[in-house]
Amino acid sequence: MFKINDNYLKLPGSYLFSTIGKKVKAFQEANPDKEIIRLGIGDVTQPLAPAIIERLHAAVSEMGVQETFKGYAPDLGYEFLRSAIVENDYKARGVDISIDEVFVSDGAKCDSGNIQEIFALGNKIAVCDPVYPVYVDSNVMAGRTGTYDAATGLWSDVIYMPCKEENGFAPELPDVVPDIIYLCFPNNPTGATITKDQLQKWVDYANANHSVIIYDAAYEAYISEANVPHTIYECDGAKTCAIELRSFSKNAGFTGTRLGFTVIPKDLKDADGVALNALWARRHGTKYNGAPYIVQAAGAEVYSKAGKEQTAKQIAYYMNNAKYIYSGLKDAGYSVSGGVNAPYIWLKTPDNMTSWDFFDYLLEKANVVGTPGSGFGPSGEGYFRLTAFGTYENTVKAVDRIKAL
Amino acid sequence: MFKINDNYLKLPGSYLFSTIGKKVKAFQEANPDKEIIRLGIGDVTQPLAPAIIERLHAAVSEMGVQETFKGYAPDLGYEFLRSAIVENDYKARGVDISIDEVFVSDGAKCDSGNIQEIFALGNKIAVCDPVYPVYVDSNVMAGRTGTYDAATGLWSDVIYMPCKEENGFAPELPDVVPDIIYLCFPNNPTGATITKDQLQKWVDYANANHSVIIYDAAYEAYISEANVPHTIYECDGAKTCAIELRSFSKNAGFTGTRLGFTVIPKDLKDADGVALNALWARRHGTKYNGAPYIVQAAGAEVYSKAGKEQTAKQIAYYMNNAKYIYSGLKDAGYSVSGGVNAPYIWLKTPDNMTSWDFFDYLLEKANVVGTPGSGFGPSGEGYFRLTAFGTYENTVKAVDRIKAL
Repeated sequence: MFKINDNYLKLPGSYLFSTIGKKVKAFQEANPDKEIIRLGIGDVTQPLAPAIIERLHAAVSEMGVQETFKGYAPDLGYEFLRSAIVENDYKARGVDISIDEVFVSDGAKCDSGNIQEIFALGNKIAVCDPVYPVYVDSNVMAGRTGTYDAATGLWSDVIYMPCKEENGFAPELPDVVPDIIYLCFPNNPTGATITKDQLQKWVDYANANHSVIIYDAAYEAYISEANVPHTIYECDGAKTCAIELRSFSKNAGFTGTRLGFTVIPKDLKDADGVALNALWARRHGTKYNGAPYIVQAAGAEVYSKAGKEQTAKQIAYYMNNAKYIYSGLKDAGYSVSGGVNAPYIWLKTPDNMTSWDFFDYLLEKANVVGTPGSGFGPSGEGYFRLTAFGTYENTVKAVDRIKAL
Repeated sequence: MFKINDNYLKLPGSYLFSTIGKKVKAFQEANPDKEIIRLGIGDVTQPLAPAIIERLHAAVSEMGVQETFKGYAPDLGYEFLRSAIVENDYKARGVDISIDEVFVSDGAKCDSGNIQEIFALGNKIAVCDPVYPVYVDSNVMAGRTGTYDAATGLWSDVIYMPCKEENGFAPELPDVVPDIIYLCFPNNPTGATITKDQLQKWVDYANANHSVIIYDAAYEAYISEANVPHTIYECDGAKTCAIELRSFSKNAGFTGTRLGFTVIPKDLKDADGVALNALWARRHGTKYNGAPYIVQAAGAEVYSKAGKEQTAKQIAYYMNNAKYIYSGLKDAGYSVSGGVNAPYIWLKTPDNMTSWDFFDYLLEKANVVGTPGSGFGPSGEGYFRLTAFGTYENTVKAVDRIKAL
């Protein structure tokens, strides 16, 4: 008689964005005449850049001709893409990463969900609170988080690092030393960043305690300030303690095209000298079969001269939205943060409303969809996330509606 | 101090096809003038069909225009694709599967590796021997297989169902009842099939014992005989005991394009009434982010009139290769099977050679790459797999070289 993995049953409710989707769908069905503006899920709206489209067409044509047709991709991804990554994301920033430390995947969500598999179940994880739900949920599914306390919204075996207004939304070094530390900067959901000096402290802490940092840099392209690191490997010693997750979703609009990569330096080893790079290579080879050739070709085009120029324009477009939201809400008397090095604006709900109450209020009164801060963890209660990924027209309309409330 | 998942260290050697790749690379480097023909890994060689290429181009163009741009896909996959699957793969065969029982993914390898996650670690798995390595390896990584005996090549906690010449390469119902039964028909690697009546016995056995069958039907398109089932749901009662894995890799040449799907009927429940469909939906929503829109669009085109005609021609092309290999080797005195309802030919090595000795022999003397049967499990020892996925020209050349040995 088979038995299910009952860790799944411990998960409270459904995945945050599924819940939001259902609520919005129900509201739209009840109010078919209302024009809903979605600034909730962090999905992009600008079409793929012309250079990328052109490369996609060329790659599609290659797939239709025997001589240039591509079957299974190499385990770690095509060399042309991994070379472009190494050159542009690392070498250009003075960081030495080799191409066999780069694993191409179909996106940072999968990688951030799967990465915990190469660690023992007994490891204790630390996460920021609020946090991108996948880090915690994937550890719940694996059975690494203990029991859930519905009253507090906390898991017994997870170390939480509250990120609130009081500490500038930056996590503090935890008292109990974690084995695995999830960090995401620029942060989803708060839009906060930390400086290179601040991140160096985390790297030193991890090395001193032999912890591993899983560093999610999916929003790196939105950094506008000079002292904010684009990769954790800008910090000394990061190669012996950090895994970095990267994505093409937000810097090049690949949310529906699917491409990402994970960097695991060969110097990152457990106490017995086992290299995590080799474990992830084994997982990649056994349980994954590569991103589509046409998508990898498109990914490489992101690093071309035209690709860089065109995607930079998209980012500027979204950051202009961020500015509009930030200043508009500030004008309206909201307490807001984020939006400077990240496409997310994090606001305090007015009148001590709960995050979900504010969600309902905004949906009903302004027909604007945001994301309740409490959906990202208990310290997100009383906060709310708006994304800059809408169109400019919709962003203006949404902010004007909120201001008019 | 972090600790690794030391189940990974139990895995003997590297993934089969990585090992073959390295051996072939070394041989080619040592013999740059030799023209190697690859009939090893089951990778297709025919370009994508014209109708699919056309749809891909159209979908790429949609991604370049704001109005038709697509971001994140729906959790389970686009409805247009799931409807086409339900209509063509199931309804057309008299099987009633609903679209929310279909989960679109980036391929059957990932699904067959990930599906074990929704089951408890204590479940006992049964596999055919020989078997597609991913079923076993993914369970090893999860810690479900006990200890490995290098002398026998067997895991202590796995139930093996030998498939050899004596039983027509069809597994027999095991004495010890497994919780999870992996079946793959048409079979990889042996190319064998079982009839609908034979499969019905497995379904009845699973229902009687409350076991779950993970049915890999990736090679379904190659079935040429009438009494061989195309889906396990042709059998009565399969919806309460079976998960089906399907792929676009072999029926439409998507090995480098990446698309597959898993069917989990809502009636499939554990003893406490928990539906596996809901668990997989949760995993899909939490740890996966959908196949690319352009690839899902291309997948739907496989079911169009032109798509069906063109992919049928590709399959006929490969099956003509299979026939050539089968009869050529038979003429040369080899004992061969498979190749009738599957693109794989399974041959007995001559003179009691081991599978790897025959691999080396064929590589060195005929410059032909095949797959050692022992790489698929101990009962594969003394056997060897050749695939029909090469070009016709290369297939003829390879067979003629083997005949000339």
